[in-house]
Amino acid sequence: MPDPINTSEFALIDWIRRREDTRPAGAWARLGIGDDCAILSIGEPCEILVTTDMLMDGRHFRLERDGPDSVGYKAMGVNLSDIAAMAGIPRAAVVSVALPRNNAVKLAQGLHSGMSALAERFGVDLVGGDTNAWDGPLVINVTVLGQATARGAVRRSGARPGDIILVTGPLGGSLESGRHLRPEPRIAEALALHEAVPIHAMIDLSDGLSSDLTHILEESGDLGAILDAAAIPIHADALAMSHRDDRPALDHALHDGEDFELCLTVARDDADRLLAAPPAALRLHYVGEIVDAPGLRLRTEEGIRPLQPSGFDHFRPRG
Amino acid sequence: MPDPINTSEFALIDWIRRREDTRPAGAWARLGIGDDCAILSIGEPCEILVTTDMLMDGRHFRLERDGPDSVGYKAMGVNLSDIAAMAGIPRAAVVSVALPRNNAVKLAQGLHSGMSALAERFGVDLVGGDTNAWDGPLVINVTVLGQATARGAVRRSGARPGDIILVTGPLGGSLESGRHLRPEPRIAEALALHEAVPIHAMIDLSDGLSSDLTHILEESGDLGAILDAAAIPIHADALAMSHRDDRPALDHALHDGEDFELCLTVARDDADRLLAAPPAALRLHYVGEIVDAPGLRLRTEEGIRPLQPSGFDHFRPRG
Repeated sequence: MPDPINTSEFALIDWIRRREDTRPAGAWARLGIGDDCAILSIGEPCEILVTTDMLMDGRHFRLERDGPDSVGYKAMGVNLSDIAAMAGIPRAAVVSVALPRNNAVKLAQGLHSGMSALAERFGVDLVGGDTNAWDGPLVINVTVLGQATARGAVRRSGARPGDIILVTGPLGGSLESGRHLRPEPRIAEALALHEAVPIHAMIDLSDGLSSDLTHILEESGDLGAILDAAAIPIHADALAMSHRDDRPALDHALHDGEDFELCLTVARDDADRLLAAPPAALRLHYVGEIVDAPGLRLRTEEGIRPLQPSGFDHFRPRG
Repeated sequence: MPDPINTSEFALIDWIRRREDTRPAGAWARLGIGDDCAILSIGEPCEILVTTDMLMDGRHFRLERDGPDSVGYKAMGVNLSDIAAMAGIPRAAVVSVALPRNNAVKLAQGLHSGMSALAERFGVDLVGGDTNAWDGPLVINVTVLGQATARGAVRRSGARPGDIILVTGPLGGSLESGRHLRPEPRIAEALALHEAVPIHAMIDLSDGLSSDLTHILEESGDLGAILDAAAIPIHADALAMSHRDDRPALDHALHDGEDFELCLTVARDDADRLLAAPPAALRLHYVGEIVDAPGLRLRTEEGIRPLQPSGFDHFRPRG
C-alpha cells in the first residue's frame, strides 16, 4: 500500500503542519499553516523588515552533492543574514518550493529539517508556504519577516566620510569547504553592535566584500572607500583555494561571495572602542575607511590603487 | 555596444527600482528596493496577513504561449486572491524570479509590467525581491503582506451547521478561455461582505469548489455540506469545455480550479439579506448549506449522493 504522504500534496502539508504545531509559537504567530494566509499579530507600532531569497539547484547549491537538509538550512540562513544586516529580530517565515516530482515528499521533509534547525535557534515561526511538484530542478524560496529594534533598522545608506569599516569575521573561499551552504546569521552580533554604538551603514557579505561595500558607497551618496590590504582578515578557506588556483588569497577575501559576515561602518571613536572591547565576545576586524572621493581603492605597501568590484553577478555564469 | 541593462543583474534591479520610486508609496512602505530588507512602518497594533505562491513554467502557465505580462499578472493575482479570502487589505509585495538566462532582462520587464498593473490597482507596493538567472524554466514567487480589518481576518475554520454557502461568481472551465491567467482578486467584494454581515468562513476557489469547500469543512471541525446541483452557477467556459470533452458542465463547475471566486459561509438570515440585496452590486450565488454529518454531498433531482472532492493536487500530473 502506498504511504499516503507520498502521493498527496495535502498529506505533506499536514505532516509539516503537525510538526510546526508542536512548537511553541513565537511573539507574532497567531495563525500558521492551513489557511489562505498566515496571521501575525503586531501588538504595537513598529518597523517590519521583509526579505526574500530564491535558491535554485545548480546555481546556489547542487542537490545531489549537498542534500536537502543543507539546502533548507541555506535557504533559511541567507534570509536571516539579511535581517541581521538591518540589525533586526527575525520573527516569521513562509516557504515556497518547486520539488522534482521524483521523491518530492522525502525531499520536502529534508528541506524542512534543515530549515527548522535554524528557525528554532533564532525564534522564527514557519507560518505558511506553497508546495509544488514539477519535472524541473529543485527551487526553494523563503521570505522572512522581522522587526527593527527601538533604535531603528540599519540601512546601507548611512555611511559618512571618515567612518571606519569593520567586518565580523575572516573572508574568502567559502566554496572551498562548503561554508557557503552553512551561513551563520549574525543576528546576535548585529544586535549587540547596534546596542553598543550607532551603526551608520551595514550589509551582509553575500556577493563579496568589494561588491557589497560598493553597494554601501553608492547608497550613501557616491562615497569612496580605502581598504587596507594588510588588514583584510583572510579565511583559511581562501588560503586553501589560493593554493589550488594560484590566485592570491587576498583576491578571494576581497571578491568571493557567500561569507555572510557583516560589513559595517561606524564613527572612528566608536570603532576604537569596539575594537578595544568588542561586545559579547564578537570577532571584529578593521578593514578600511570611508572617504569623500567616490570609488573603491586598496592600500598596499606600494601605495593606493583603484579596486574593481567583482563579486557575484547572478546574471553571469558561475565558474 | 551592449545595453548595460542586458548584461547585469544590478542594472535590471535599478531599472525596476526607478519605476517603483516614481509611484506614490502606500500606507506601509517606508523603504523599498535597494537594501537588505524592505522596511514597512506599522503605525498601530494590527493583524498582518502573509501569503506566498510559486508559479512554474509548464505547471501554472506556459511562458511561450502566455507571455511574461500574463505570468506577472497571475503571480500577483493569486496572492491578492488569498488576501481577499481572509477579507484583508493588501499592502506590500516582494517578488523572486528565476529567469531563463536567454533574454532574462526583457522577460523581467514583462513580468514587472503584468504585476504592476494589478499592484497599482489594489494599492500594493512592490518593496523588494530577488533576481536570478539560470538555465532552467521561468519560476516566479510572490509574497504579499496585507492587513486584516478591525473586524478581524476571516478564516476557513468558522463554518457552522446551518450556514448557507455562497460563491461570488460562475464556476468551471477557466482553462478554456485563459481565464486561469487573469484572476480578478475579490478584495473589494470580500471587504463589502465582511462589512455587511459576519462571515463565518471563507476561501478562494483555486483548487476547485469541491476541494476548497472540503478544506472549510475539515478546518471547521469535520463538518459536512450539501451542494445543490441546480443552484451551482456554471460559467460559459464550463459549457464550452463540456461540449469539447463530453464531461458534464456541472462537473467542471464543481471540480475545476482557478476560478478565484470566493466561497463563504454565513448564517441563514444573513444569506437571505445578502442575496436579496447584495452590497456593492456584488454577484452572489447560493450553492448549498453546511450540515453536521461530515463529508461533501450533492443534491440532485434523484436525491442526495456523496461527492468526491477532486480538485487540483499539485503532486499529480496535470491533464
